[in-house]
Amino acid sequence: MNTLEQKSAAGKYAATLIENGMVVGLGTGSTVKFFVEELGRRVNEEGLDIVGVTTSTRTAEQAGTLGIALADVDDVDHIDITVDGADVVDAQLNGIKGGGAALLYEKVVAKNSRRNVWIVDASKVHEELGHFPLPVEVVTYGAEQLCRVFDNHGLHPVLRRTADGEPVKTDNGNEIVDLHLDTIPFPSELANWLANQVGVIEHGLFLNVADEVIVGGDEIQVLKSPALMY
Amino acid sequence: MNTLEQKSAAGKYAATLIENGMVVGLGTGSTVKFFVEELGRRVNEEGLDIVGVTTSTRTAEQAGTLGIALADVDDVDHIDITVDGADVVDAQLNGIKGGGAALLYEKVVAKNSRRNVWIVDASKVHEELGHFPLPVEVVTYGAEQLCRVFDNHGLHPVLRRTADGEPVKTDNGNEIVDLHLDTIPFPSELANWLANQVGVIEHGLFLNVADEVIVGGDEIQVLKSPALMY
Repeated sequence: MNTLEQKSAAGKYAATLIENGMVVGLGTGSTVKFFVEELGRRVNEEGLDIVGVTTSTRTAEQAGTLGIALADVDDVDHIDITVDGADVVDAQLNGIKGGGAALLYEKVVAKNSRRNVWIVDASKVHEELGHFPLPVEVVTYGAEQLCRVFDNHGLHPVLRRTADGEPVKTDNGNEIVDLHLDTIPFPSELANWLANQVGVIEHGLFLNVADEVIVGGDEIQVLKSPALMY
Repeated sequence: MNTLEQKSAAGKYAATLIENGMVVGLGTGSTVKFFVEELGRRVNEEGLDIVGVTTSTRTAEQAGTLGIALADVDDVDHIDITVDGADVVDAQLNGIKGGGAALLYEKVVAKNSRRNVWIVDASKVHEELGHFPLPVEVVTYGAEQLCRVFDNHGLHPVLRRTADGEPVKTDNGNEIVDLHLDTIPFPSELANWLANQVGVIEHGLFLNVADEVIVGGDEIQVLKSPALMY
């Protein structure tokens, strides 16, 4: 199976986890797209009755087109399950997210979800974090000064830009700085340091968030967090 | 001296600290207004040559009207001195800011300043933090869920609203939640906890930021941080 087929397989498998009456967090990205597509099919063909909570305007548009009922995170009591992608997943099911610039709303939805399931292709699974630039959402005002702070700490910051050279803007109107780190040996410490920097809105380290990771392939692999294994 | 006169005295005194060629951070609020007014007078009457870096659209408007040259925080190499107000200052010169909803840009400018001077009337000085609701700037998406988390932690959150009952929006498009705490016995721990909450953009605890606090009165009092006293 090539990468695209793996993504599709993971997305379709995740859709089988959704049951009538659930409030479902809908992530963002190329793998989630397959999940949402399959969910839309189940809503239309099987009459599956769910409410989706989206993490980006992109996913909201796709879900809306498919006729999936949507609600804001503040309009629901709780979210039963959220299915999202990840850019990297390590052996502890910690991950890096934000390649699609939707990390803030993805984290808000994840934190409000009882169960978090990530869907990935096999290339995303590594022993340790790293292997992908770490996205950080930052306030536009002072972003260049903040990049100097990152640079002074050896974090190799690069402001993310569109093809036109303009800074990428998130759904919340902020900018994205990608930290080009080969490895992240102390993810918790880095997460805490980033959270305490003035101008950092949120970072792409998702630690202790995922309960399960579904890896697409000829055979679906389901990795479970240690907390769920016992 | 009444409170207004104290504010005016503190603001005018702070303006005497500004010298030719300085890049000056301009805070926000009713006390800073007097400082900016006096700074404008010196620019116009004495030909004082400075560049101001503002922390809010309100201050930018006032400074612009007075003919003070302005720059964004990212357009200057450094800020020599920032003069700002505070809602509460304690004996260690830690403070609560954000009563005027400008805490995010105020903190960005403060963190990029070589010297931070706060100007207050005498009613703002207390032995310990507290005595004023602690403002927290939060992402609109998920704000109600975040308020539940604050509530579960005994932080007595209240979403700040305009006279019309609409949520107050900051210059950055976010909302303000005021935490109604009588005292804040562990300010560093609370600051770190808040910084790590998903959806918190920034909080109004300004710890180890002020170098000096100017207290208005018949005689001006200048409180200095322990680091400056030795």
